[in-house]
Amino acid sequence: MSVDLKSLVRTIPDYPKKGILFRDITTLIEDPKGFRESIRRIADAHRDGAFTHVAGIEARGFIFGAGVAIELGAGFVPIRKRGKLPGETIGQNYVLEYGVDTIEIHANVLNANHRVLLVDDLIATGGTAIAAISLLRRTGAVADDAAFVIDLPDLGGADKLRAENVNIQALIEFAGH
Amino acid sequence: MSVDLKSLVRTIPDYPKKGILFRDITTLIEDPKGFRESIRRIADAHRDGAFTHVAGIEARGFIFGAGVAIELGAGFVPIRKRGKLPGETIGQNYVLEYGVDTIEIHANVLNANHRVLLVDDLIATGGTAIAAISLLRRTGAVADDAAFVIDLPDLGGADKLRAENVNIQALIEFAGH
Repeated sequence: MSVDLKSLVRTIPDYPKKGILFRDITTLIEDPKGFRESIRRIADAHRDGAFTHVAGIEARGFIFGAGVAIELGAGFVPIRKRGKLPGETIGQNYVLEYGVDTIEIHANVLNANHRVLLVDDLIATGGTAIAAISLLRRTGAVADDAAFVIDLPDLGGADKLRAENVNIQALIEFAGH
Repeated sequence: MSVDLKSLVRTIPDYPKKGILFRDITTLIEDPKGFRESIRRIADAHRDGAFTHVAGIEARGFIFGAGVAIELGAGFVPIRKRGKLPGETIGQNYVLEYGVDTIEIHANVLNANHRVLLVDDLIATGGTAIAAISLLRRTGAVADDAAFVIDLPDLGGADKLRAENVNIQALIEFAGH
């Protein structure tokens, strides 16, 4: 029996601010079958890709990315907010609604011998994901694939990633914001 | 062949401040065999425990906790810093070197029917782990087991947890601070 992943996502209205329907994946991951099925579907779609690493974006992307890395037998590369990684890092800025933020990975981990799958819980406008792909590619690694549990296609992020020649998998789509 | 997990942990001197030897697990998780072996050892030690959930502490605890949850076929409960979870939460304060911090889980997820394994990357003085166990137990769930990749036994956290009747697994120990 297939698990209905979409029904396991809780929608919280007006969070984090009025007018936003927040798609909450904690109800999905708290469900053993839902969590396992999410990981398996992402892993199954990428088993033939010879991925050496899975990169997950802090913090919810760690939950799905780590599971997929274990399933694929790949290493896990944490993509963190600025100042959180203890070693030498390389960073990538990206524009938020109000201001600029930075994500970082450790330097000297990835190189042209590596192939990386980016995993995050959700893609909306795609700002963070595009910065993450740029950051991964700057190491010389191949970073042409990204998987998300949820896509909000009306916000255009997945299309922006496709325009950067990234193959996208999304397990669930929600129309609207 | 057994993997030497300890040799995969990088030590960064004087981070985050002078005199501290920071034990960096990113070099362990970036190694496919090291990451997989860490997860498997924790899962293998808890396969007979009938755990319904694994709880991981933000953010590095998400990486190991999610992997263990997948291996055990359990649900994953994120323990987050204050204000990060979108639904109704219950929180637990704990004392830091300078001040007080709060961790939270979603309310109405765990109850007396559940058995939870706490997973984090490292136990030092144990403040966060003891707060996490208290928080999990307040839901009525059984939370008598905790697994850590690294224990710094001289800092006493593991002993404090044992005094709270928590069974501890640690994959690696480092003497000193």
